Parts: sequence; structure tokens; C-alpha cells
Amino acid sequence: MNLTSRISAGQGGFVLFAITPPRQSTPAEQLPEIADATIERLRHLDLDGLVLYDIDDESSRNPNERPFPFSPTIDPSDYRSEYLQQWDAPVVVYRAVGKYQREELAAWLTAQDADRTLTVMVGAASSGTVAPVSLADAQALRSELHPNLLLGGVAIPERHSRRENEHLRLIAKQEAGCRFFVTQVVYDLNAAKNLVSDYRYECEARGQNPVPIVFTFSACGSMKTLEFLRWLGVDVPRWIENDLRHATNPLQASLDQAIATAVDLIDFCRRLGVPFGLNIESVSIRREEIEASVELAAQLTAHVRSAAP
Amino acid sequence: MNLTSRISAGQGGFVLFAITPPRQSTPAEQLPEIADATIERLRHLDLDGLVLYDIDDESSRNPNERPFPFSPTIDPSDYRSEYLQQWDAPVVVYRAVGKYQREELAAWLTAQDADRTLTVMVGAASSGTVAPVSLADAQALRSELHPNLLLGGVAIPERHSRRENEHLRLIAKQEAGCRFFVTQVVYDLNAAKNLVSDYRYECEARGQNPVPIVFTFSACGSMKTLEFLRWLGVDVPRWIENDLRHATNPLQASLDQAIATAVDLIDFCRRLGVPFGLNIESVSIRREEIEASVELAAQLTAHVRSAAP
Repeated sequence: MNLTSRISAGQGGFVLFAITPPRQSTPAEQLPEIADATIERLRHLDLDGLVLYDIDDESSRNPNERPFPFSPTIDPSDYRSEYLQQWDAPVVVYRAVGKYQREELAAWLTAQDADRTLTVMVGAASSGTVAPVSLADAQALRSELHPNLLLGGVAIPERHSRRENEHLRLIAKQEAGCRFFVTQVVYDLNAAKNLVSDYRYECEARGQNPVPIVFTFSACGSMKTLEFLRWLGVDVPRWIENDLRHATNPLQASLDQAIATAVDLIDFCRRLGVPFGLNIESVSIRREEIEASVELAAQLTAHVRSAAP
Repeated sequence: MNLTSRISAGQGGFVLFAITPPRQSTPAEQLPEIADATIERLRHLDLDGLVLYDIDDESSRNPNERPFPFSPTIDPSDYRSEYLQQWDAPVVVYRAVGKYQREELAAWLTAQDADRTLTVMVGAASSGTVAPVSLADAQALRSELHPNLLLGGVAIPERHSRRENEHLRLIAKQEAGCRFFVTQVVYDLNAAKNLVSDYRYECEARGQNPVPIVFTFSACGSMKTLEFLRWLGVDVPRWIENDLRHATNPLQASLDQAIATAVDLIDFCRRLGVPFGLNIESVSIRREEIEASVELAAQLTAHVRSAAP
């Protein structure tokens, strides 16, 4: 079963790899080789799909200086259609809905092939921002214009730690059409388990089936990348920070830690009967961190395939 | 090596079982059989020592109603000398120092056999309480009157989650003579790892050796017991609460969870080179929870002995 049929059936067990499109400032003549190098890296992995992020300037949500400067990136849907045609598995295209006019979004939704494309809609980064289209508007547009296009939403375990209602937000998103959820990078295993558990029992109480939750993992090879993860709102426990800071090989330590966290979470989801997927990304553009994330994807794919119940 | 020589050498790898002495209201003629039943339960375990708690009325530290009513218990040192003479391994006798006059405490300290007795001194439950003897006074008394009597202190991972300085408190207690630490019941693995990690790297930065941290585990078979753990200040993650609430056999679920947490923490301490001990208690007086804690001690002792590096 491919990604879209699995998600349509409410099933998990899939593995994705997430890419941020190149910066808009990248010379156009370099884009084909960047895309080819990416496809080449991922070709030997047994992936079920790609994720393409849509990066918005999120400086409004965090008053602290961004550890890596923001630079606008190419539209993920344009990047895919122009440079990633070789990739034939489904692609989850993110839409930072606050960036678009209503007509643009409507045209994009209508034009998609629901067998090849899924979308995750993300609201504006800060509630202080006034966007032309709200997340609720965008979700309603999809229901109206293209109800077969599979819709996902973001799930944030860290928000559950602070407000204890993220499971209710997920259920509200399900009511708005979401058929899967994707988390931020998971470092806080406890927070992720709390969210999965509360979500699962709330679904049961309402007589609903849980939909797949896709957990994101990444290798982190430097304190600068860790600082960036924190800036993005990821809770990195002190002991993991200490491990990385004192490791002879931080990238290997991070890989080991991500695998241990993923394996624990997979066991937990299986025990609770919550469908899950995995999503691997590199949050940095350093070559060695990208390669470590590819290695992470290889190991986690092997684990998911071998241990499938 | 027995418990006292291990701790004197800064080594871990030991397993203790903790008992709260019977209530003062217990008819005196029942005490011998209660003590015998306890010894009988523990005799087949390969324990390195007993812990005897000294219970103070802690209602001052928590304005919420205590889920199990407070009832004064027999002095642990008296209980030991009168009813637990059959027990020949060392005993860690708690002293809630706020309960005693200076002379009482001095006399007790002086009278102990340092080969058979260790002590953990605990300060008053709330800083609003004025006690005749402060924790610092009591620690100083031991240094002065009986420096060979091994002293322990409490370590609270939950406090580290909130204030991020528990590792510094441990080091200050080490400077006041502590040679080991005992935690509350551990349910929040992440909090325990954060404390161990910060403590280990702070010791390294100061050129000190870490002393054994004794992690306490318990079986919890009911929501009432869980509520009591929370009242005592133990952070029980939501997913563990949900597991117990929905389990067909909550006691077995709790046992499985405690073993998984202990095994993870043991691996973590070994990897970081922090000496550790285990302490198993029953926080409730229900027979089945006591028996489950004995079973927990049996399984964890086997694990520690078999997997010793």
C-alpha cells in the first residue's frame, strides 16, 4: 500500500523524509543539481514519501535572535514540479497558509492530484499576525474545493506539556478534515508519550479512531543546531544537551539518541494501538548533518519494516 | 562488599528495601508478628540493606487534603532495635531532624554502630516550619560527634525540573558530609536523567567524584495510591497515569513500568559512570501493593546482579 492509501485507511507504518526547498537567492542554474543530489541521496532508502516544507518568517513568534538567519525559500510546490519530477512516490506539500491570498490557495488546492499529493496546512506562527487566510478558512477551502486531497495538521507535544489540551486541538483538526498529524522534531519522549496517550483515550471516549501521528526525528551535530531547535520551540532535555556537549562524536550520539527515542515511541504507539509514521529531516544545511539524517532514515526504515506486527 | 563498605568506597550496585514503621496506635502485642512478617517477606530477597523511614506530618508542605490520613509512626530506630534484631544487614535509618531536640539527636548519633547503621537526614517539610534543629545543624552534629557514621541526603529530581539547581544542592550536601543520596519514588524518567546528568558534569567540572544516587521505585496499584504519590510531590507523567487507569491489571502495569524505568536509568548511570543504588518501597499499606513491591525488588535485584559490568 502506498502512502495515500495507507492514510486513507487510517493506517500508519510509513516513513517520510522532509526537505526544505533551496533559498530563493540560489542561482537558478544550480537548482537542478541540488535537486538531483537530493534525489540521489534518498533513492536507496525505502521511503514512502517526501515532505516539502513551506518556510515562513517565524521571527514574530520568538523575540530572541534566530540562530540561523531567515532567508525565503522557493515555493515547495513549484520546486517539486520543476525539479523533483524524478521522484514518483507521493509528496506531502506544506502550506504556510498565512503567506497566500485566498485565490492562490484555492487555485493550488484545485490543481492537485490527490493520488500524488497530500498537504499539511500550518497557521500563522504567531496569533499577533493578521493573515489574509486563516487556518480554519484554508481547511474549509480544501473541504469545499478538493475533499479527496489528504489533509494533515501539525501536532506539538511541547504545547501539550504547557497547556495539556493539544489532544483536543488534534481532535478539532480532525473535525476540520485532518487525516494525519506531523510533529516537530521529537527530543522530549515523555511529552510525546503524554500527547499520544491523552489523544488515544480521548478518541476512545468519543468513539473515534485515532489517525496516524507522524513523529519527526533529526540528527543534531552541534550546539548551534541545538540552539536553533530550541528557537523553533523544540524542548531538548538537559541530559540530551549534556550528552551532545560532552560527546567525542556529537553527531553519532545524536543518532543513537534519536533511534532510541523513536524505537521507544514506536513500541508505545503499537502497545496503545495508535497508528504512527516517521518523518526524518535535517534541521541544518551542514553536509554531515544531512548525511547523518539520511543514515537515521535508513536505520529507522529498517526498524519499522522488520518489526512490523 | 557490604553496603557500608560500598558506600565508603563511593561504589553503587546495591539494592535496598524501604519500610515505614507501624503506626504508634498499633497494639504493642501485634508488633512482633508485623515485624516477623516483614522479615519473612524480605528474607528470600538478596538485599544489601533496609531503609527505615521516619515519618513527619508533612501537611504543612501541601495545602491539599492528604489522600491517606496522617498517623504518627513508631520511631524507626526504636522499631529496629526492639523488633528487627533478626535483620543482620545494615539499615539506613531516616531522621526527620525537625522532630527532635538537639540533645536527643546528639545522643542517637553517638550511640550508633557505624558498621550496621547509616542515616539519611531530612529537613523540615516546609521552610515555614521552625524546628529546634535545622538540617545544617544536624549535619554538623554528625560531623562533630560521629564522623564515621555514613550520612545520606534526599535528592529530588522534580525540584530539578522546576529550579534546575538540585545538582548544586547535592554538591552542597556532599560538602556537609553526605556520601549518598536517596530519591523519592521515580516516575519521571526524564527528570531523573536530567538530574543525574547535570550532577555528573558538575562533579567533573569541580574535580569531584560523584557519590551513589539511590533511586526509589514502587508499585502503584490504584488511583488512590497515585493521588498520594502526587500529594507527596512525585511527578507522575500523564501517560503513566492513563496506562494505570485503563489497565486490566494496574498493579502489573505499574510493575512493568517501574522495571522499564529502572532498567533505563541503570543503563544511563552506567554509561555516565555515576554510581547508583536502588531502593524499593511500598507507598501504600495494601497487602497486594506490598507484595508487588517485593516482586519488584526481586526482579530489580536479579537485573542489577546479572548485568553488573
